Amino acid sequence: MMSKPLEHEPQPVGRFAPDLQPRLSALLAPIRPMLEEVERILVEEADSAPPPLDEMLHHAIAGGKRMRPAVILLLGSLLSGDPDHLAQVAVAVETLHVATLIHDDMVDDSPVRRGHETIHVRWSVRDGVLAGDYLLATAAKGIAALEDPQLMGVFAEILTTVCIGQIRETHTAPGEIRGLDVYRRDIEAKTASLIAGACEMAAMTSNGSEAVCMRAREFGKRLGVAFQITDDVLDFVGNEPRLGKPLGSDLRQGLLTLPALLYIDKGGADDGVLKVIGADGDRSPEAVAAAIEMIQASGAIDAALAEAQEQAQAALAILTELDTPERTGSVALRDALRGLVTYTVSRGR
Amino acid sequence: MMSKPLEHEPQPVGRFAPDLQPRLSALLAPIRPMLEEVERILVEEADSAPPPLDEMLHHAIAGGKRMRPAVILLLGSLLSGDPDHLAQVAVAVETLHVATLIHDDMVDDSPVRRGHETIHVRWSVRDGVLAGDYLLATAAKGIAALEDPQLMGVFAEILTTVCIGQIRETHTAPGEIRGLDVYRRDIEAKTASLIAGACEMAAMTSNGSEAVCMRAREFGKRLGVAFQITDDVLDFVGNEPRLGKPLGSDLRQGLLTLPALLYIDKGGADDGVLKVIGADGDRSPEAVAAAIEMIQASGAIDAALAEAQEQAQAALAILTELDTPERTGSVALRDALRGLVTYTVSRGR
Repeated sequence: MMSKPLEHEPQPVGRFAPDLQPRLSALLAPIRPMLEEVERILVEEADSAPPPLDEMLHHAIAGGKRMRPAVILLLGSLLSGDPDHLAQVAVAVETLHVATLIHDDMVDDSPVRRGHETIHVRWSVRDGVLAGDYLLATAAKGIAALEDPQLMGVFAEILTTVCIGQIRETHTAPGEIRGLDVYRRDIEAKTASLIAGACEMAAMTSNGSEAVCMRAREFGKRLGVAFQITDDVLDFVGNEPRLGKPLGSDLRQGLLTLPALLYIDKGGADDGVLKVIGADGDRSPEAVAAAIEMIQASGAIDAALAEAQEQAQAALAILTELDTPERTGSVALRDALRGLVTYTVSRGR
Repeated sequence: MMSKPLEHEPQPVGRFAPDLQPRLSALLAPIRPMLEEVERILVEEADSAPPPLDEMLHHAIAGGKRMRPAVILLLGSLLSGDPDHLAQVAVAVETLHVATLIHDDMVDDSPVRRGHETIHVRWSVRDGVLAGDYLLATAAKGIAALEDPQLMGVFAEILTTVCIGQIRETHTAPGEIRGLDVYRRDIEAKTASLIAGACEMAAMTSNGSEAVCMRAREFGKRLGVAFQITDDVLDFVGNEPRLGKPLGSDLRQGLLTLPALLYIDKGGADDGVLKVIGADGDRSPEAVAAAIEMIQASGAIDAALAEAQEQAQAALAILTELDTPERTGSVALRDALRGLVTYTVSRGR
């Protein structure tokens, strides 16, 4: 597949990719009313901000897949958590997630997110800084309202870890060949820590035992790692209009993710790819497209996807063993969680 | 006094302006060991961040006057609060304050703070975003560790209010003539809410009654308003090397603060000043210096300082009436708080 400059089509606002949407929509049926409540609160939060912040917030929350709320609501319901509390945690986690996206887009200077202009481009850098800060504060307020100090501790820990992950990635020199272990540590911090913390909070809100909370956390971590690896693979093989951004964005910035690192690890560093991805590489669209083809042809994409699959399998195994109370609808909730895990890694196929 | 482009001299790092330092230093003697503990924890926080974030954080915390920690420690000690808890609140509030300064400097694109280059200039905008976020998270973690949900609620509320105040000011059009009430609302949100919340938290940490917590909050609000008005006046009459920035910075950005707004309110809007401060004003250094002279000559500076004095008097009155437990050293603590309030407004003279 060739990379070329992309005419951005607006993505369908909200929800999952069109071909997977019907199946996922059916899986999410048991928590549909709760997801709608989460959506309602998110919109209400945006409405209650003073102008022009309200408009920025509506723009920022639109089009999200709400994967994190879905995981929280499914896992928390499986553990018989209180629906209102779970919805509040789901809103706070999604709000935190949107805040980090606004700031990440500034850090990466990304012009487009979900097929729409990013906040700092459409408004300004100063508005991006403040809108992100406001959402961080709103998320913290939402968790504080639940009056559970342990929950607040997990929440605050997530944010420091995400920042550390982002800072590490930002200070990865262009073309730097990270060790595979360093890559794995970095994606755990920047992506998986939020989903791990979200799952732990879902279990805490449901009064899960400490052992259950730790298993829930591990489930989220595995899911988060699988998700990020798949995302990194999609930058090599994805469907551009659906991604909402051109292929090869990472390579063009000199950021080497798992497929490139596996390719180099297998001894591919000495040929043409290094000319593209090295510190002084030629990062023209043509050169990047050629590098993508070489990496694809090497089998490194399949190896990366296999690693994502392995993480997803580990998440599914935790789910099977998870000690959950007997309740009506458990089977449907567990099936939906399985479906979400499977969807996460199947995006790359 | 004429405004002219400034050669920035580095400010003495840390502590108050040199001429006031000996007196304040004596006043702060009762809480000196606690202030040193706060300083130690702030340095430890910076040390514990991964490179190059640690260096940015050391840069960001250096040279602060620690006014907010001083107020928290004095007020909390007067209310017989636990020294360790008070130190933790003081560290969290100062950490939050430094985080907002980093982001504010990006929002205002200020190149210099406390006589040193700002983070986004010395490093980069992306580093400024992330360093600020990391400190916000660290502050939230510090408060979460105290395991008091009400405290966390006040803390989260502060941050949303500060953001709203900043956004309002940012979206004040250049040269916009805000009503005096709008100006007062804006400085309450962007500056006074943090000091008000800090004082409320100091009282909460000391198990103050709700009435005492509300009085403490009101004390902080008055002090914060007095502080911000004085800061705004200093932009017209301050000592440039000590300010660490050129006079007239606000006017040059088209931001009208109390002295300019009082001048216009008294009917001065139709003359030469409007040519400088209006929407399409001539904001050259010479024009700004001329506008400053007109505003000074009108008596608007004195009127603004009188308003700051009035707020400081209200803060002192609350302090006199505040119901505090009997304890050794109360007189010294109360005197020190009075001294801080007086110092805050005397900076403008």
